Amino acid sequence: MATKKIALLGFGTVGSSVAKVLATGKFAGVELTHIYNRDVERKKSTPNAKFVPKTTVWTENINDVLSSDVDIVIELIGGLDPIESWLRKAITSGKSVVTANKQLIAYRGAGLLRLAKKHNVQLIHGAAVAGGVPVIPGLLQGQAGDQITRIRGIVNGTCNFILSKMEAGAEYADVLAEAQALGYAEANPSADVDGFDARAKLCILSRIALRAELDPEQVPTQSISAVQAIDFAYAKELGCTIRQISAAELVGATVQARVAPMLVPNTLPMAWSHGTQNMVVASGRFGGDVVFSGHGAGGEPTAVAVVSDLLAVVHGHSSVELPIKKRVVTGDFLSPHYLRFVVNDKPGIVSAIAGALAKVGANIDSLLQRPGHDKNALPFVVTTEPCLNSTMDKAVRIMGKMDCMLEKPLCLQMLEREER
Amino acid sequence: MATKKIALLGFGTVGSSVAKVLATGKFAGVELTHIYNRDVERKKSTPNAKFVPKTTVWTENINDVLSSDVDIVIELIGGLDPIESWLRKAITSGKSVVTANKQLIAYRGAGLLRLAKKHNVQLIHGAAVAGGVPVIPGLLQGQAGDQITRIRGIVNGTCNFILSKMEAGAEYADVLAEAQALGYAEANPSADVDGFDARAKLCILSRIALRAELDPEQVPTQSISAVQAIDFAYAKELGCTIRQISAAELVGATVQARVAPMLVPNTLPMAWSHGTQNMVVASGRFGGDVVFSGHGAGGEPTAVAVVSDLLAVVHGHSSVELPIKKRVVTGDFLSPHYLRFVVNDKPGIVSAIAGALAKVGANIDSLLQRPGHDKNALPFVVTTEPCLNSTMDKAVRIMGKMDCMLEKPLCLQMLEREER
Ligand SMILES: NC(=O)c1ccc[n+]([C@@H]2O[C@H](COP(=O)([O-])OP(=O)(O)OC[C@H]3O[C@@H](n4cnc5c(N)ncnc54)[C@H](OP(=O)(O)O)[C@@H]3O)[C@@H](O)[C@H]2O)c1
Ligand SMILES: NC(=O)c1ccc[n+]([C@@H]2O[C@H](COP(=O)([O-])OP(=O)(O)OC[C@H]3O[C@@H](n4cnc5c(N)ncnc54)[C@H](OP(=O)(O)O)[C@@H]3O)[C@@H](O)[C@H]2O)c1
Repeated sequence: MATKKIALLGFGTVGSSVAKVLATGKFAGVELTHIYNRDVERKKSTPNAKFVPKTTVWTENINDVLSSDVDIVIELIGGLDPIESWLRKAITSGKSVVTANKQLIAYRGAGLLRLAKKHNVQLIHGAAVAGGVPVIPGLLQGQAGDQITRIRGIVNGTCNFILSKMEAGAEYADVLAEAQALGYAEANPSADVDGFDARAKLCILSRIALRAELDPEQVPTQSISAVQAIDFAYAKELGCTIRQISAAELVGATVQARVAPMLVPNTLPMAWSHGTQNMVVASGRFGGDVVFSGHGAGGEPTAVAVVSDLLAVVHGHSSVELPIKKRVVTGDFLSPHYLRFVVNDKPGIVSAIAGALAKVGANIDSLLQRPGHDKNALPFVVTTEPCLNSTMDKAVRIMGKMDCMLEKPLCLQMLEREER
Repeated sequence: MATKKIALLGFGTVGSSVAKVLATGKFAGVELTHIYNRDVERKKSTPNAKFVPKTTVWTENINDVLSSDVDIVIELIGGLDPIESWLRKAITSGKSVVTANKQLIAYRGAGLLRLAKKHNVQLIHGAAVAGGVPVIPGLLQGQAGDQITRIRGIVNGTCNFILSKMEAGAEYADVLAEAQALGYAEANPSADVDGFDARAKLCILSRIALRAELDPEQVPTQSISAVQAIDFAYAKELGCTIRQISAAELVGATVQARVAPMLVPNTLPMAWSHGTQNMVVASGRFGGDVVFSGHGAGGEPTAVAVVSDLLAVVHGHSSVELPIKKRVVTGDFLSPHYLRFVVNDKPGIVSAIAGALAKVGANIDSLLQRPGHDKNALPFVVTTEPCLNSTMDKAVRIMGKMDCMLEKPLCLQMLEREER
C-alpha cells in the first residue's frame, strides 16, 4: 500500500488532537505532510505540536496545500466560507476530504458529496455528528440493510450538561455559567442552547439514516433557555426528565423534524444520558431500536472519529450509497404535551385554560400542582393527550394573552413511553 | 455497477429473514440466485418463502452453489463442520462470504480471514456478534483510530432475559422454562446459560477491538444457573444488579477475559439493559467509553446485519486492517467480589469465613444479612476489596468444605462503579 500524504487544515482543539492520535497510533500508510493554520508560530508552541513530525510543513498559505500533491485533506477549521471553496478546490484536484464540520455538511453537504463522486474521491465526515461515537459509520455500514424510519437523540453535549445538572437541582443561569467556565459553552451560547448546532447534526443524520435531504432552516427549534428548575420537579412527578432532543421521522413523503427540550420518560435510554454524553437512537423497520452513545465532543474523542475516517479512505473505503430524496419538513409531531404556567392565582383560571385547549381541540390528560408555592406566582402544569405541535402553538398564543399569566406558558413535547 | 449473484446457505430463522429484507429493500445490484438447504420442499412452504424470487434455484446439493458462478455466499446454517470446508471451497473459487456464524468465526476465523485475503475476496461477519447492533462495523470503521483497551458487554440475549426477569422477582427455573417456551432458549440451554455462546462472541470482539487473537477454550466461563433470587435482593442493597457480562481487557501482553454473571452497579449502562437486549461497551484510550445497544438476536434484526454486510461487499467494501496478535488469556481480574453463603447458622461462622479470606489474603469490605430468613438455611453475603478471581477461587474451595455450608458458596465478580 502506497503511503498517502495528508494535510491538516486547522490546528485547534480537534486538529491538534488528530496530530496526537496519529503520532501515538503509528498507523502505516499515512504521512502528515502539511499543517495549515493562521499564525503558525503561535500554534507551534501549543502542547500537541510536539506530536507533529519534523518533516511536516507548517503554512499560513492555503495554496501551499491546495496546489500540493497531498492525497487527503483533513478540514478542522469549521464554518461555511471560505471552507467550502477550499474543499471544492481540493476535491476538484483529486484530493479526498475528511471533515468534522457539521454546518458545512448540513448546509452544503449534498453538493459537495456530488462533486466528490464526480471526481471519484471520498468526502467523509463521521466526526460531524456525535464526535467520537461511531453513529455515522454504524448507520452507513451496519444498518444499510434496514429501512430506518426514525432517528432521535441527544447530539448537543452542552445542552445535555446543562439539563442534566438542572435535573440534579441547579438553576439554568448558574449551570450555563459553569458550562462556560469549563469551556463546554461559548460566550454566546445561542448555537447550543437555541438548537442550531443540534439541528445541523439532525439534518446530517436524516440524510444518512432516513435518506432524506432536509433544509436545516426549515427544521423548527425551541430553546432550552425557558426550562426552569420547577419543570424538572413536575417532569419527575410524570416519571420523566427533560433533555434537548433532536428528532426526525419519515412519515409518508414528509419528514417530521424538530429540535427542542422534550419530556423524556425514564424508561427510555435517552433519559439515562448524563453530562456531555451524546446518544442517538435509530429505529429500523426490521432491526428495531439501535442505541449509540458516548463522548460526543472533546478534542480526542472527535479526533478518533477523524482518524478512523482517514484510515477508511487510506484503506480504499467506499461506503454503501443509497438513493437520497429531498424531503419537505414539518415540525408537527402528534404527541402528548406538557404545559407549564406561572399565574397570579384567581378563581376561573383552570377553566379559562381548559377553554383555550378545548377551542383548539386539545384534550387535557392530567393537571398537576405542587404544594408550597406562592399564590401570586403559582406554577402549575397541564398535560394533554396527543395533539399536533401547531395545535399547541395556537393554544399557547391564546393563553399567553390571559391577564393571569405572569410569563409565557412553556410548552414541551412529551416522548411516548414505549420503545420499538 | 454489475449485478452480483448471491447464494443463501440455510433458510432458517435468519436465512429466511434475509430473503424478506432483500425483497422488501429492493437493493440495486443484488440477485438471489441460489438457496441451499436440506429438505427444500419443506422450506418452500415456510412463510418467508414468498419473498424468494421465482428465478432463484432451490437446491439440496451444496455443489450446485460451490461450482456455480455465484459471487457472494451468505452462510446461515451454523456450526463448524462441514461449514468450514464449504466456505473454504467458496473462498478458494473466488467467492466472497458473509456469515453470522459466531462459533466458526471465533474458532476458525483467523485461518478463514487469511484465506480470504490470499484469494482477494471478502469474509465479513457483522451479524456474528450482537445481531442487529452494528458493533462490528462500528468498531472496524468508526473506532479504528482509537486504541481500544477494554471491551465489555451483554452479548447473550437469553441470559439477559433470564437475569432481568429474575431482577423483577422471578426464580431461575421458572424464567428458563418461559424462555424455552418463547423460543429464546434451547431445550439444552447450556450454550447460553453456561457462557459458551457469549465466549465465542467475546473472542470475536477481542480480535476486532483489542486486535488480540484468543483461544476461546482458554477463556473461563461461569454459569448463571447458580444465581438465585436472593442474590438480586443483596445486589440491590449494594446498588447493583446482576448480568451475564463478557469482558476482555488488554493488560500488557496479556488479555484478561471472562464470561460470568457479575454484579453491575446501577450507574453503569449495562445495568439498564433489559430483556433480550444486547449491549457492548468499548473503552478507548482517546475516545473513552462508546456504548452500542439494541436487538442482539431474532431473525429480522440479524438479517439487517447480514444484508448490510452484503451491501458492503457489493459496494466494494474493504475494512481497515490492523495487525492482530495472538494473546495469552488469563481469567484473573483484580476486582471486588461478592460472596453469598447459605449456612446452618451457628456461632463462629463469620469468624471461620473471615479466617478463610484472611488465609488467601482477601479483605472483607462489607457483610450483609437480610432479616427474615430461617437460621437453618441462612443466606448472607460478604463483599471483598479488590482481589484476583484465582484468590477467591481458593477461598471458595476452603469455605466450601466447612460443615455449616448448605450449598457451594456463590462468588461473583463485581464491576467497579465508575465509567471511563
Ligand atoms: N471541539 C469539538 O469537540 C468538536 C466536535 C465535533 C466537531 N467539531 C468540529 O471540528 C471543527 C474544528 O473544531 P475545533 O473545536 O477544533 O475548533 P478550534 O479549536 O477553534 O480550531 C479551529 C482552528 O482553525 C484555525 N482557524 C480558524 N479560522 C481560520 C482561518 N480562517 N484561517 C486559518 N486558520 C483558521 C484556528 O486558529 P486560531 O487558533 O487562530 O483561532 C484554530 O486553530 C469544527 O468544524 C467543529 O464544528 C468539533
Ligand atoms: N437466530 C438468531 O437470532 C441469530 C443471531 C445471530 C447469529 N445467528 C447465527 O446465524 C446462523 C443461523 O441461525 P438460525 O437461527 O437462522 O438457525 P436455524 O433457524 O436453525 O436455521 C438453520 C438452517 O440451516 C439448515 N441446515 C442446518 N444444517 C444443515 C445441513 N447440514 N445441510 C443443509 N441445511 C442445514 C436448517 O434446516 P432445517 O430446517 O432442516 O433444520 C435451517 O433451515 C447460526 O450460525 C447462528 O449462530 C443467529
